[in-house]
Amino acid sequence: MAAGRQVEVYLDLMSQPCRAVHIFLSCAGIPHRVRTVALRKGENRTPEFTKLNPMQKVPVMVDSGFVLTESDAILKYLATRYNVPEHWYPRQPERRARVDEYTAWHHSNTRPHAAKVFMLEVLLPAQSGSQVDEGRLIRALSQLDDTLDKLETMFLRRQAFLCGDDITVADLLAICELMQPLGGGRDVLQGRPQLQRWRSRVQSAISDAFDRAHAILYAVRDRHKAKL
Amino acid sequence: MAAGRQVEVYLDLMSQPCRAVHIFLSCAGIPHRVRTVALRKGENRTPEFTKLNPMQKVPVMVDSGFVLTESDAILKYLATRYNVPEHWYPRQPERRARVDEYTAWHHSNTRPHAAKVFMLEVLLPAQSGSQVDEGRLIRALSQLDDTLDKLETMFLRRQAFLCGDDITVADLLAICELMQPLGGGRDVLQGRPQLQRWRSRVQSAISDAFDRAHAILYAVRDRHKAKL
Repeated sequence: MAAGRQVEVYLDLMSQPCRAVHIFLSCAGIPHRVRTVALRKGENRTPEFTKLNPMQKVPVMVDSGFVLTESDAILKYLATRYNVPEHWYPRQPERRARVDEYTAWHHSNTRPHAAKVFMLEVLLPAQSGSQVDEGRLIRALSQLDDTLDKLETMFLRRQAFLCGDDITVADLLAICELMQPLGGGRDVLQGRPQLQRWRSRVQSAISDAFDRAHAILYAVRDRHKAKL
Repeated sequence: MAAGRQVEVYLDLMSQPCRAVHIFLSCAGIPHRVRTVALRKGENRTPEFTKLNPMQKVPVMVDSGFVLTESDAILKYLATRYNVPEHWYPRQPERRARVDEYTAWHHSNTRPHAAKVFMLEVLLPAQSGSQVDEGRLIRALSQLDDTLDKLETMFLRRQAFLCGDDITVADLLAICELMQPLGGGRDVLQGRPQLQRWRSRVQSAISDAFDRAHAILYAVRDRHKAKL
């Protein structure tokens, strides 16, 4: 690694996957520089950013000219390239496969289902000025419940973290999604002590990086409460 | 590796991700045994299968007692554990990251959008006995078009395969999804010469394994045509 080498990441901390990357860079001690791309101001659609990522999405990572998108891929690349503590993305094939298994599942379950609740309770009403669509919200909460059941009864059944006895990149991706509905004042882990204990373990493992990454979401929650 | 060691895979070849695993095992020359789980007969909901995979989904892989779900994770595990030709899942971090980038994107794009077209044109009408919902189909085709545009203009812009100059597990996952609507007589790559050339390259690279994995889908297409 060249001296002074620094990873650049383009992030908006209101985006769940961006927070996972932000937390990981801090916890793993990887020298990096954050460039903020404010989605609400459309900064992901400027000509410069579109040149960097034609998909116009965050996060984006640039490492010595290598441009990479998709938080899942970014986390695994950084863990490999920067030789971070083994537990984040284990090299042993069976243990690594458990992380790849969760992350593949995550994209069709935890991510869309938690994101939809936030979209219905916060984003759509803010954009349209209309009330929350209660029918759609009830259906979205029911789908999220099914995902939360699976997290408890399958992934966390016999272990402290989603993919084993120590924290991995999978836990970061999951916790950042499950925190998102808090922006609308909703703690989706309420009434779920097993998932709450997991959240506490994740918070302890990543310490201050958790609250630093979530500061903007906490502010959104506080503004949302003040309006009610 | 112990002599006589054999991977067991639980598959239904009507399932897109199962076909990707089937093709990979053949092409990589990994000794394996296929156990068929017929989804249409509910064999994924038997007590025995539910014990193996509480999610009641295929594919499932068992390797010397290690049970793994999620095609994405199974392909990457097999490539690592069985030391297959490097091109399938490159070890070099930047090249590997390109595969992880596509597969992460795949779960929220190629997979749901192609699957939805098949569901609307084949599965739902067969289950309910009613006509195709044309309004929903038009919306699904439009979403799939957007995904196909991105495959052409981004992933295949400057290279022969999705993640570089040689075939990877990403191409297998993608082609098996994009073939699925053929079950309803629809070739989604029609009018898209760039993607057709890619499909031909993938077919050449995997040779007979392609048609063997798709034989059941071809039969579904032929029955569908006969009904019209």
